[in-house]
Amino acid sequence: MGATTLLEVLVWLGTITFAVAGGLQAVERRFDLVGVLVLSAVTAVGGGSVRDVIGGRIPPPALTNEPLLWAVAATAVLVAFLHHHVPTGRTLYVFDTASLGLFAVLGAETGVALGFGFWGTVFAGTVSGVGGGIVRDVLCGEVPGVLYRSGDFYASAAGFGAGAVHLLSGPLGTDAALLVGTLLVVAVRVGSRLAGLRLPVPRPSGGPGPGADAP
Amino acid sequence: MGATTLLEVLVWLGTITFAVAGGLQAVERRFDLVGVLVLSAVTAVGGGSVRDVIGGRIPPPALTNEPLLWAVAATAVLVAFLHHHVPTGRTLYVFDTASLGLFAVLGAETGVALGFGFWGTVFAGTVSGVGGGIVRDVLCGEVPGVLYRSGDFYASAAGFGAGAVHLLSGPLGTDAALLVGTLLVVAVRVGSRLAGLRLPVPRPSGGPGPGADAP
Amino acid sequence: MGATTLLEVLVWLGTITFAVAGGLQAVERRFDLVGVLVLSAVTAVGGGSVRDVIGGRIPPPALTNEPLLWAVAATAVLVAFLHHHVPTGRTLYVFDTASLGLFAVLGAETGVALGFGFWGTVFAGTVSGVGGGIVRDVLCGEVPGVLYRSGDFYASAAGFGAGAVHLLSGPLGTDAALLVGTLLVVAVRVGSRLAGLRLPVPRPSGGPGPGADAP
Repeated sequence: MGATTLLEVLVWLGTITFAVAGGLQAVERRFDLVGVLVLSAVTAVGGGSVRDVIGGRIPPPALTNEPLLWAVAATAVLVAFLHHHVPTGRTLYVFDTASLGLFAVLGAETGVALGFGFWGTVFAGTVSGVGGGIVRDVLCGEVPGVLYRSGDFYASAAGFGAGAVHLLSGPLGTDAALLVGTLLVVAVRVGSRLAGLRLPVPRPSGGPGPGADAP
Repeated sequence: MGATTLLEVLVWLGTITFAVAGGLQAVERRFDLVGVLVLSAVTAVGGGSVRDVIGGRIPPPALTNEPLLWAVAATAVLVAFLHHHVPTGRTLYVFDTASLGLFAVLGAETGVALGFGFWGTVFAGTVSGVGGGIVRDVLCGEVPGVLYRSGDFYASAAGFGAGAVHLLSGPLGTDAALLVGTLLVVAVRVGSRLAGLRLPVPRPSGGPGPGADAP
Repeated sequence: MGATTLLEVLVWLGTITFAVAGGLQAVERRFDLVGVLVLSAVTAVGGGSVRDVIGGRIPPPALTNEPLLWAVAATAVLVAFLHHHVPTGRTLYVFDTASLGLFAVLGAETGVALGFGFWGTVFAGTVSGVGGGIVRDVLCGEVPGVLYRSGDFYASAAGFGAGAVHLLSGPLGTDAALLVGTLLVVAVRVGSRLAGLRLPVPRPSGGPGPGADAP
């Protein structure tokens, strides 16, 4: 199996992982079958598509990748009817973290290829990793978790990985930069959790509020 | 009156119908005149514009169609000041269903013309039909109704019609495919209501929840 | 200092003002550092970027303007840690109003350059002025204030200024139209406040509701 094929397999795994996460959230919110389909699809291909439209790859390749869209649709239907059997908890956390890393660095690579600078690349990578989830949360009527869940380094992990791709693509070459970036995303997310780190949360009133995690 | 002129008249009727629906929702939410204008415009031309941007028709033709935009603005002002006299209930339902069918199949036709496959076309048609309404609901701070109102086949009806356009454009030709698709949207929405059908709603806890229709 | 340099300085001031406003809202909502960064950036460059994508300037110039993005990021970090020292109240109101005027007329100028008509130009100018704030409010889980705060002529002021740019660009030339448009935005916002004007709010039930300002 060549490197291209391996990458393709990984992108498929990541896309289906995100589709599962989106579908499960729709089930929790008691959405109907259409809602499960929409949330699975938005979470799976939404972030990359936003990045593509903003970056000028129009129409976004995901929208013309029919086998992948069939897989997303099938995943959504399976989640809708068999959600009691879908592995959640630690298994989903592992797959989700790996997918986040993969999407963030591939998005960053797109940014580098478009000639973006540091912050442009960080934006491209972060949107690719967490953009679909942000739209999903908005559609659920919720404040996107990545904006306030200071105990989960999620968007920040994606941003670090994307920034690493920008800094390392030149000196190390694309392949090595992608690998290091992915490992960095995983290390930041998992490491911060194990170390019990939290992102700084500004305190508007000068004293502790009614719970920094619950705006 | 030629076929092109007829289609243009129908698109105007559909656009104004959607502008009325959006304006009425803004009035219900006690938005001010600017809010009524924004919600009318978003509902009327938002879905098609999102489809156009994603599909590469930039700027979206609706944004340069000044007579249509004047009509939308005039509709919004009329709804703001004369909303007690706007027909709602069954009349709005009939116009809204016909407009949904029209926009879904025209959106699907755009998808077919762009070379989209089955799911890409279903996406283009569904976004054209319900995308404006989704943005409108998000702006109102609400979970979009199409995601959970299992008793109203709305996005699903649009999806069926769009799928039909994809499957039938080749064998039947564009005109016949558009006609069949529109009728299918209307049949699915009205028929499912008359038959009392509901979309499946996954039950997260294994038992009946506090109301599948109210997430 | 030439006119181009002056304009550039003003755009920088406007962008940083909007970044401050977005960051302060994130602090109030108890978002973490990532949330402050995202809300600052969305408010500062979101509206113009949406206008650019819809108008075909892809990727949006703001995304490749690294010095400006560094300034936005630095502003967000400063707001996160020093928000008690950030001037709010009247000072922020003055800067925010001037920035609104500037962004609205520059957005309208883009619309005119793209060949948009009256409403297209009003759309381009208004989205440039208030689009970032709308996305910011949606990310905060709130109904965008511009849709219902009838006592604050904000989106309407931007729309008037943009419309003026469309009408005056031909007879007066671009520079004079931009100046008049900006002054009009400021005059409409400040004047309506001083005069105690309110936008019309339709009353759905025929009588006074539970507070037109609180949907």
